[in-house]
This record gives sequence, structure tokens and C-alpha cells, in this order.
Amino acid sequence: MDRQKISLDEVFTPRGVAVIGVSNSRMAFAELVVLAMQRAEFPAIYPVNPKYDEIMGLTCYPSITDIPGPVDHVVVNIRAELALQLLDECTVKGVRSVHFFTAGFGESGVKENAELEQEMLKKARAAGFRIIGPNCTGLFVPGVRLANDFTVPLDAGPIAFLSQSGGHAQNLPSYSANRGLRYSKVVSYGNALDVNEIELIDYFAKDDETEIIAAYIEGVRDGVQFSAALEKAAAVKPVIIYKGGRTEAGMRAANGHTASMTSSIDVFDAVCRQRNAIRVDGIEEMIDVLVALKFCKNIPEGNRVALVGAGGGPSVLAGDEMEKEGLKMPPFSAALQDQLKQVLPVAGSILSNPLDTPNMASPEAITAGIGVLSGAPDIDIIVYHLGFHPISQWGIGFFKERTQVQRIVDAMKAGMGSSGKALVIALRVPQTLEGMEEYLTVQEVFAENGFPVFNSMGDLARAMRRVIEWSHVRNATV
Amino acid sequence: MDRQKISLDEVFTPRGVAVIGVSNSRMAFAELVVLAMQRAEFPAIYPVNPKYDEIMGLTCYPSITDIPGPVDHVVVNIRAELALQLLDECTVKGVRSVHFFTAGFGESGVKENAELEQEMLKKARAAGFRIIGPNCTGLFVPGVRLANDFTVPLDAGPIAFLSQSGGHAQNLPSYSANRGLRYSKVVSYGNALDVNEIELIDYFAKDDETEIIAAYIEGVRDGVQFSAALEKAAAVKPVIIYKGGRTEAGMRAANGHTASMTSSIDVFDAVCRQRNAIRVDGIEEMIDVLVALKFCKNIPEGNRVALVGAGGGPSVLAGDEMEKEGLKMPPFSAALQDQLKQVLPVAGSILSNPLDTPNMASPEAITAGIGVLSGAPDIDIIVYHLGFHPISQWGIGFFKERTQVQRIVDAMKAGMGSSGKALVIALRVPQTLEGMEEYLTVQEVFAENGFPVFNSMGDLARAMRRVIEWSHVRNATV
Repeated sequence: MDRQKISLDEVFTPRGVAVIGVSNSRMAFAELVVLAMQRAEFPAIYPVNPKYDEIMGLTCYPSITDIPGPVDHVVVNIRAELALQLLDECTVKGVRSVHFFTAGFGESGVKENAELEQEMLKKARAAGFRIIGPNCTGLFVPGVRLANDFTVPLDAGPIAFLSQSGGHAQNLPSYSANRGLRYSKVVSYGNALDVNEIELIDYFAKDDETEIIAAYIEGVRDGVQFSAALEKAAAVKPVIIYKGGRTEAGMRAANGHTASMTSSIDVFDAVCRQRNAIRVDGIEEMIDVLVALKFCKNIPEGNRVALVGAGGGPSVLAGDEMEKEGLKMPPFSAALQDQLKQVLPVAGSILSNPLDTPNMASPEAITAGIGVLSGAPDIDIIVYHLGFHPISQWGIGFFKERTQVQRIVDAMKAGMGSSGKALVIALRVPQTLEGMEEYLTVQEVFAENGFPVFNSMGDLARAMRRVIEWSHVRNATV
Repeated sequence: MDRQKISLDEVFTPRGVAVIGVSNSRMAFAELVVLAMQRAEFPAIYPVNPKYDEIMGLTCYPSITDIPGPVDHVVVNIRAELALQLLDECTVKGVRSVHFFTAGFGESGVKENAELEQEMLKKARAAGFRIIGPNCTGLFVPGVRLANDFTVPLDAGPIAFLSQSGGHAQNLPSYSANRGLRYSKVVSYGNALDVNEIELIDYFAKDDETEIIAAYIEGVRDGVQFSAALEKAAAVKPVIIYKGGRTEAGMRAANGHTASMTSSIDVFDAVCRQRNAIRVDGIEEMIDVLVALKFCKNIPEGNRVALVGAGGGPSVLAGDEMEKEGLKMPPFSAALQDQLKQVLPVAGSILSNPLDTPNMASPEAITAGIGVLSGAPDIDIIVYHLGFHPISQWGIGFFKERTQVQRIVDAMKAGMGSSGKALVIALRVPQTLEGMEEYLTVQEVFAENGFPVFNSMGDLARAMRRVIEWSHVRNATV
């Protein structure tokens, strides 16, 4: 008879972690996990390899059963053929969860490998421990210092991410760190042999540390259960879903990647619509939506944008991008123009929408201009554009200095006051190392100060639209 | 009676350049032009300002008529009210062209300013000299060291760019430099008072230094003439057009920007289709299409892509992105898989499409794998994906070293041999300064070696599709 399954709560709070297949002579996943855990200062890391006494300054053990302390979680990067024997040792040691980075199971398309997977599951069920994967990068739980990558932010935050792809599971937190996103739990679950999307969505819906749920899914095993889990989760928290394998070629790749039986994309989309999950088409778009959700304390009800700070060409582009996504950039009313004229030096400036005024360069003018806009009843969203071209009103390299950026941020905050309106920043990704330095500094300082930052007008418009639409449906059903 | 107009050939080859309104006490457009010209080592730069004897190490003249040598081109950044008097001095000096950075003319919406523009045009016609703008950043002609920005590449190349926006005129060459694009002439023409899009397209169609014509246009004054110019140009060279102001908000911004009477977007699109001009929706997309045109010596006839080097998640995304743009990522034939198995170590690898094999990390394996693919009759385009995540097969920071990148490039070249197939590189824009360093190095080295490099799978697929479609129409009509 099978033992009672270990709960995900227990999986996410391991006391000791063993890393199997770690080596002194290469740098692959197992070694990177050890490095990542050392960086995170996880207190009990146990490398396992009979060939070594010490690895990366840590005592190395010949087998998992030789480790003195408790081992709750096991990270595995050894050949698939050795998996069953290892699981027997895990049973003896009494672990809670085993994560297989190892690939070459069900997703290989080879019958024997798929059968091997089922044998592994039997052993897990008999002993009660859980399997993460195989064919994935496993767990990142910043709250307990459990890490699998050293480019991710180690302070915890409100976003949970379940990802069938290991690459995406690492890229989302690492790519979004600078824009202020932080995570409660990130789970790469690969072939979903045991822990799967349904259990994870159920768990995150109830998890107190999670306010927003993000998911990268290639295929779901049970559409009805999935839809039910989504319904429960989306009723209490925003859920964002990136479905990989939307086309024939993508589905073929997904099948080779995680053996996913991808369902009809139309059915999948219909379920997301019905449950008011926000559907996105890539990791970058997922980051954009997460940024909009996390930093717009009051998601705007309307779609009327006031644009500030872009030059001519970018302003035209902005208008086009906004309208393409269903946002509006209406001309300023005469009353609003009058108000702006009273606070801004006007020579050579057009006080229309977009507000393309070189006079908005001083902190005082920013405060005054934003102040007028944040009080305007016919404006819902204020978009501030910051480029990094030498001919900006701020001069070359101005934004390299955090203190300079902070002055701009403070001026904007003063202008926003307690209006509760959304102030959203649009940047442009530069193509020089100098520009990149400015861009990263600006991203970081604005994010630290609680402002949503996007990498282009198009990205901004798309994310704001998704979030506004989501909010409308939610408000209508609450 | 009006004098004969100076030709654009003469405008593009000035012997001396005067910069009006340059100052020692600020850093604005006029000062940046002087810096840019000094960087470009233009031999005869004359700052003009009665307040100074010297500016930026150059002799400064009280007025343009005080300059001893010939002055063919004049860059103007003074108040609009002073324009007419300045043009009288230009007539006395016998200049060929006057570029007004100064704004506040027709685009301001004020009747007097629009009339002032017409007075300026009369003076130009009477004297024969040409006006560039007003309200623009003017000329960049690397071949004669004429520069207006110091982030642009100074070696000349085959691309001409006419841009109604000054920002775009500077951004295109500066953003695309690292990806190997070089320019014959870049003209920002703003309000198009005199020199306009029709004359420029006509000129570039005949210009021996120009092989590809790119245009950013907000509005055309004469649709029939424009269509005729486009027909002649597109018959001999690829023409790429980014039309700003496609939506109501965009049009409103365009009208405030360059006083453009934007025509119906449907008519504009129909003209582009009819003339086989490639229409794009932004500067980044324009760069992508230019990269595809410049570096695909043989534009592929078919749309069948073999993808190499991406991990699981990115492969799924790639399949989706390719198919969305009408490209195919077909499964490899049994014969092709056999050939790959003969040259690649296969343990743990899937030799399907995408070719997600960690064994393609050595130069030898790259040469062998690419060699097989470049010889495959059922593959038209080989896409190589390079990420910058620490867990790449190459290790952290590998791509910072130009020599390392060059080894990969050489291995690819050896694999491609004389197959004539397209090998296209997909990168991903990192979000750390370290990653950015790698990314810029990879961009640069691949571009220097003649390979098209794109910043994402989606960008790559979109650009390749545009260029393949363009080529099909061209081949059908030739």
C-alpha cells in the first residue's frame, strides 16, 4: 500500500539538500545548484559523489545514506539508468522530494524511458516522497534560501511561478529582477510525472505568500481538472498563463521537450477567457503584465493616456502603439492646456498630448506638470518616456548616477501626490554599453520606488491593456 | 525670377559648414553637431556667434558673412524670428543649403509661423539654395565626414535613410551600428518645406552609393508623385517604409510633430503593396529588415527553418514564432537525422527539429552539424540560437571574449561552406550589464563576419518573412 504523500508545504521547506552527481571537474547544472545555494547561504548543502571527499569547499559524501543530518530534498543530475537505485537510497534516507534535472525519460519518445518514469513514480508513491520533473530545473524558494540559479533575486516577493520549462523558470526571475519583481516560489516541473500544474495552481491559490500566480504550460493532462483549478485560483488571485506550443511547430517542439500532449489551443484559450486568466505569448510579455499588476496599486478604470517626455518620432509611435492596443491618447482639453501653461515655461513647447516639452527637464517642472495631469479628470494613465539618446534634455550619461534618477523620481512622486493615478515609465533598450548602464540604473531606481517600467511603448500599451481588461472582468464578477 | 535650384548632389558635398547659434555655455543640438563634426574630422567647421571668439577650440565668427572660406552648408539653431535675416546673410555668402534644427514653424499650428515658412522658401528659391527642414536634425553623410550625431558609425555603407523625424534619423544608424549596418546618406527632413520625400526617393534611386532605401514618413504632400517615385525606386532597389501616424492618435501626434497632412493609411498601404515596398511598423523592425536584406546574400526562396542551439522553452517559442509569421519548422527527415547521427555525439540529444543538442558546443561539432544542415535539400534557413544564461554549454562570460566568439563564427563558416544557404543568428537581450557585454560582443563579431543577427526569435521570423515575400514579388515581376 502506498504511503500518504508528502505535502507541497513540506516540499517547499527542506532542512537539508543533497546534490547528486556533482563534480569537481566541470561546471554543469549540479555544480551551479551548489554555487547558487552557497550564494543563498542555505545552511545544509550535501554534495554526493563517491569520487571526492570535498567539492567546492563542502564535505562530499559517497552516497545519500552516508549524510549525517536530515536530507529532505534531493537534486539529481546523473544518468537516467541510475535513477531507480538512487530512489531506493532516497527511500532509506527518508527524503521528502527528489528533483530530477536528468532528461531522457518520457520526452525522449523511447518506450523504455517512458516505462522507467513509471517505475520511478511507483517508488515515490510507495515511500510517500514526491518527484519534481524529471527534465527540469526544480525549486527556487527564496524564503528558505533554496536556490537553483545564481542570477535570481534572493529576497522573497508575492509572485509564484510554475513552469514546465527549466529555462523559463530561471529566466523569469532573473530577467525581471531589475524591474522589481520578486518571487514566493518558482517551480520548474518538466515532464510533470508527479507534481503537476493542477496541484501547483491549487497550492498557490491557497498559499499566503503568493499574491499573483504565473504559469508557463506546454500541455495539461486533464483539461477538466485544470479548468476547475484555474477557476478557484483566478477567483482569488490574478493568474497569468503563457501557453507554449500554440502552433504545429511549437507543439512538436513541446512534445520533444516535455512529452506534453498539447491540447487544442482554441480550447485552452477559451478556458483562460472563461476563468479570466490573463494569457500572454512569451516570458517578456509575462514580465510586463506582472510589472503592471504589481506596481499599479490602483489599476486604471479608463484607457485615456497622457504622454509626457517623448520627442517627435517616439510620440507618433506612441500614439500608434496605444491605439493599436485599444488605449486612447486624446487631445488635451482647453482647460487642461490652460492649467499646463500656468505652471510650465511654454516657449517652443506644444502643450498638447503628447506633451513634447523640453521644459519638463527640471525637477520643479516635472512636479508641476505631473501635478496638473494627475489631477485631470479626463486622464487615466500618465506615461513618461525616457530615452537614452545623447540629445536628451538631461545630457549624456546623466542617468548613470542613481542620485540623478532619484531626483527625477522624487519630482514625479511629488507631482503624483495622493492622486492614486497610474504613472508608468516607458524606456527604450539602448545598443551601447554606456546606454545599457543608464538603462539598468533607471529601471532599478524606478522599480525600487514602486513605478512600473517597460522597455518600449508597445510593451507598455499591451501590458496595460491586458491588466485593464482583466480588472474590468474581475470587477464585473465580484 | 528664381535661380536654378542647387542639386542634392551639391547639397551632399559641402566644402565648409557653418553652425549658427552655437554657444560655450550649454550643450544642445548646435554644440552636439560641432562635436560630431570634430569626431568625424570634417575639415572646415565654422561656429557662428557674435558673443564668442572661440568655441570648442574653433575660431568663432560674428556672422556667416565674416567666415573667410567657402560655406556650402549651414546648420541653424536660433529662434524662428531670426530666420529671415539669417537667410539674407546666407544669400550674400552664396551657400548651397540651410538646415533648420529650429522648430516652431508650420508644425506649431500658428498661422504666422506657417507664413514665415513660406517667406523662407521664397528667399531660398530666389537665391537657389535649398532648405532642409525646418524642425529636423538634417544631414549625415559619412563619405564626406558630414555628421550631426556622435553615436553613429562613420564608415560609409549601402543604406540611404530619409526620415521626417530627427530622433529616428539619429536612432537608426546609432542603434544598428553594432549589427553591421552602414549608411550612404541619412537625411532628416522634418517639415519638408523644400527638400521632401519625393525628391529624396528619386535621388536615392539613382544614387550609386545607395543599394537599399529606407524611409520614415509621417505624411506625403502629393500621393500621385509619391507613388510614381516609389515605383521607379522599388524597381531598382529594395525600399523599406515605416509610416508613422497609422492611427488617429498617431496622426494627431504627427500633425503636431511635422505638420503632416497624413493620408488615409489604407491608401498608403495599398501604394506600398502595389510598388512592392516593404512596410514596417517601427525603427527596430526597420533595422531587422535591413539586416536581413544586407546579410542574406541569397534571400531564401523557401520558408523551411532548421533551428539549432535553443533549449526547451526557447525552442517551443521559436516554433510558435516561426509559424505565426508563416515560416515552417518541419520535422527532420529520417535521412537527415541519420546524417546528423553520423557526425554528432548523440547521447541525450534529440536529433529532431529543433536540434536541441548540448553536443553542438565544440567548434568541430558546430562545423559538422551545420555542414549537414547546409547541405539538406529540405531546409532553406538555418537559425542558430545563442542565449546568455549562465547554464549555457559555453559557461559564464564565455562570449565576452571576441576571440571565443570568432571561433564559433569560424566553425559555422566552415560548416556553411559554399552552400549559399542563409545562416541567421537569434539572440536574446539580457538584463544584466555582464550579459549586455556578451550580447554586444556577439552582435558585433557576427555582424563583422557577415551574419544577420536578431534580438529575438519573433524579430527574426518577422524580418525573414518580409524579405522572403518581397523577394518573391520581385522575382515574379523581373
